[in-house]
Amino acid sequence: MASALEDLRAAFPKPDQISTKPEDLHAYANSTFAHYGGGAHSVVVHVEGTDDVVKAVNISRKHLVPIVAYSGGTSTEGSIAAPAHASGSLCVDLSRMNKILEINEADSDVICQAGVQWNVLNDVLKDKGIPLFFPLDPGIGATVGGMIAQGCSGTNAVKYGTARAEYIINLTAVLPSGEVIKTRQRARKSSVGFDLAKLFIGAEGTLGIVTEATLRLVPLLPWKVAIAAFDNVDDATQAVLEALNKGASIQCAELVDSICIRAMNTYGTCRLKWPETDSVLFKYAGTPAAIAETAELVRDVVAKYGAGAVEGRYTFVEKDDDADALWIDRKSLAGTLSRLHPGYKGWVTDLCVPVSRLPDLIKFSRAEFDRLGLIAPIMGHVGDGNFHAFILASNDEEYQKRKEVFDTIAWKAIELDGTCTGEHGVGTVKKKYLPRELGDGTLALMRSIKQTLDPLNLFNPGKLYPDDES
Amino acid sequence: MASALEDLRAAFPKPDQISTKPEDLHAYANSTFAHYGGGAHSVVVHVEGTDDVVKAVNISRKHLVPIVAYSGGTSTEGSIAAPAHASGSLCVDLSRMNKILEINEADSDVICQAGVQWNVLNDVLKDKGIPLFFPLDPGIGATVGGMIAQGCSGTNAVKYGTARAEYIINLTAVLPSGEVIKTRQRARKSSVGFDLAKLFIGAEGTLGIVTEATLRLVPLLPWKVAIAAFDNVDDATQAVLEALNKGASIQCAELVDSICIRAMNTYGTCRLKWPETDSVLFKYAGTPAAIAETAELVRDVVAKYGAGAVEGRYTFVEKDDDADALWIDRKSLAGTLSRLHPGYKGWVTDLCVPVSRLPDLIKFSRAEFDRLGLIAPIMGHVGDGNFHAFILASNDEEYQKRKEVFDTIAWKAIELDGTCTGEHGVGTVKKKYLPRELGDGTLALMRSIKQTLDPLNLFNPGKLYPDDES
Repeated sequence: MASALEDLRAAFPKPDQISTKPEDLHAYANSTFAHYGGGAHSVVVHVEGTDDVVKAVNISRKHLVPIVAYSGGTSTEGSIAAPAHASGSLCVDLSRMNKILEINEADSDVICQAGVQWNVLNDVLKDKGIPLFFPLDPGIGATVGGMIAQGCSGTNAVKYGTARAEYIINLTAVLPSGEVIKTRQRARKSSVGFDLAKLFIGAEGTLGIVTEATLRLVPLLPWKVAIAAFDNVDDATQAVLEALNKGASIQCAELVDSICIRAMNTYGTCRLKWPETDSVLFKYAGTPAAIAETAELVRDVVAKYGAGAVEGRYTFVEKDDDADALWIDRKSLAGTLSRLHPGYKGWVTDLCVPVSRLPDLIKFSRAEFDRLGLIAPIMGHVGDGNFHAFILASNDEEYQKRKEVFDTIAWKAIELDGTCTGEHGVGTVKKKYLPRELGDGTLALMRSIKQTLDPLNLFNPGKLYPDDES
Repeated sequence: MASALEDLRAAFPKPDQISTKPEDLHAYANSTFAHYGGGAHSVVVHVEGTDDVVKAVNISRKHLVPIVAYSGGTSTEGSIAAPAHASGSLCVDLSRMNKILEINEADSDVICQAGVQWNVLNDVLKDKGIPLFFPLDPGIGATVGGMIAQGCSGTNAVKYGTARAEYIINLTAVLPSGEVIKTRQRARKSSVGFDLAKLFIGAEGTLGIVTEATLRLVPLLPWKVAIAAFDNVDDATQAVLEALNKGASIQCAELVDSICIRAMNTYGTCRLKWPETDSVLFKYAGTPAAIAETAELVRDVVAKYGAGAVEGRYTFVEKDDDADALWIDRKSLAGTLSRLHPGYKGWVTDLCVPVSRLPDLIKFSRAEFDRLGLIAPIMGHVGDGNFHAFILASNDEEYQKRKEVFDTIAWKAIELDGTCTGEHGVGTVKKKYLPRELGDGTLALMRSIKQTLDPLNLFNPGKLYPDDES
């Protein structure tokens, strides 16, 4: 490590590009969004371009020092942690690579560096008066590089899909060999072989470090919000499914359970208050006529399932200020839920199953939470079959129970043809579920691809692949 | 080969599962859609399930006989050809694997075998009264397995994207090792590592043979058709781009040039006739109100570009019978264009560039066609930047010129940040363009993945990878 550090200092002579301050070494291996202990790296290099990443990768390979990419720091599953079993690690911080390099409005695409935050990208487009936006919306602060590495999605996935769809037109990656590749040209579609960009989407930096990407944008449309209060999750899910399958143009359908509503009513920013029962927050986007039509279709469907038929149980939020506030309250739930339960720490689950099985999984999960006496408010991307339980715990006994239930419900999701991770990735936390979820053959193929690209196992070791203990 | 045939006969004792009839050996290596000579295989095995494919793969490996998958036979670029430099080849015909195994209406997905044709799948759903459909629509007769292998798209790609999006939830593939993997569970989304399904999408059967897939369906909506006549391709493209970027809910935007319109007017099935100029055929889907709104938005935009302002230059086709007929006429253009030019054979190009560069590429291509005196009607998925020129030739001199211009315009597309193949794949025909289009590093990575999965180079050798002459 000492000689690696020497080479790094020679390669990055600027005073502020290398840090070995203990607080940095810890900060860049951890995240406020995660419950795990990520340890500490040996050195952090603040790269400023693809060439810098190549230099860092070559030094890592020369000295056999594991290399971990960092950009937004919003990871929840340990993907940015320092490798636990290595004697040191080099963190490549891409957050300074935050330039938007090219905006092609006519082609609705944008070329940017990996450290650009999706929310900043959308703000810049808005400020420039360009009526387009990038529709992947994970946690605020997530960067393009991290979003690609995790195969992210967000509340807009109901309408727009995830990072695995066609929003990453091409990407530039530094391979473990130090070679730089660009996966494809800028045409919106191509059938020129298998798409190598897809190999890096969800690979959590284990196959290469993404430094730039060409992103597909979509038209920015006016939007409105509605909220429907149901008797239970079953009804809520059925209603959303029926509305979607009828072709309702819904951009988001977010389940927020009674505890979440209480948190929003108590600590939220919206002046409107809601019945404290399992509810669905809808976002409709389009022209006024399209929104009105969608709102009507949804109102009729939710009425069949107990919402809308009763006064005050379906509200179309007329004023944009209220809609904005309501949406901010949804996005801020992790914080407000913690305020509702002071002294407790939340740990978020991320299970996803075929949509028709979501009520079963939520029912099963709630029964387990109740059995163990755990408080676990639920919010969910119900249109995708994905939900997050925010399991709260305040002492060792509860921490232990939480660990237990985290497993129990993950195995149940897998039994229901689902996944242990809908959008947060695998990291260190979820490796153990993969053999049962994917099967040995599929895992073996993933490992053989990892071995082909990174024979020295230096790129983010100890993450993603179950038998890798680095 | 003789001992391989012996093993095959033992493994497939049913009388009709193996064929060595010369006409079959030729037919399964060629396609009516293609201009190339595909040679002939040594044996065709009509497989009836994944286990059969495993048996065939194991025999191929034991005797080192190349193996080529076949299902719909609609390939245009030689992907199903017999390997030219091998001493024999085994064709695995999956067209009998045409069962729809499971329809999950609530989850809007379907599990089916690789030999199912997309159009048959949609007919079955319609017959069962299920208001969902599979939106990828390449040539009629294309099968799920072939569509995955080619990374296909079609006219619906403007709204729904391509096979590289999220319509292939998971797939079952037989690897060159003979091992069977299923890439993922049935949940609509997952961030569990990189998605192995994407590795087989566009790989043209060089990494594995896909035998089953879980497909995402979308709501089937009523649709209407409109047609706009422009002065030139430039205006047509600009109009489509502007309408799309304004958020118009357009499902298809198909450029049909003046020759195509003449073919449709002369030999088409639609009773309505159109001005013989470069035109765009629009499909709008949705509720009546949504369609009306889209139609109005498009009418206003096309008027700015010379269509719509003049009587008879923008027609919203009111009657569904006429709309159906018009759409059939678009899909049948290869046939009607041949009738318009008897004695000529067509060879279709498939270039795709960033949409804003499509007018430049079409202008350049037309100038080349004119310079060489070639007739080459153009139809295009203008919303994607993808167009097909149907280059006609009737004698050796024209064949030679066509070959020359095929190259010239492909290099131009690549220079414009585009691709030699928008949706038809690489096969044997387009290998030579890949080094310039993708770059050496990207190609080397594709080859190293091929080498990892298929070290003996038995899966569809001689296709896709430029330096592979098998």
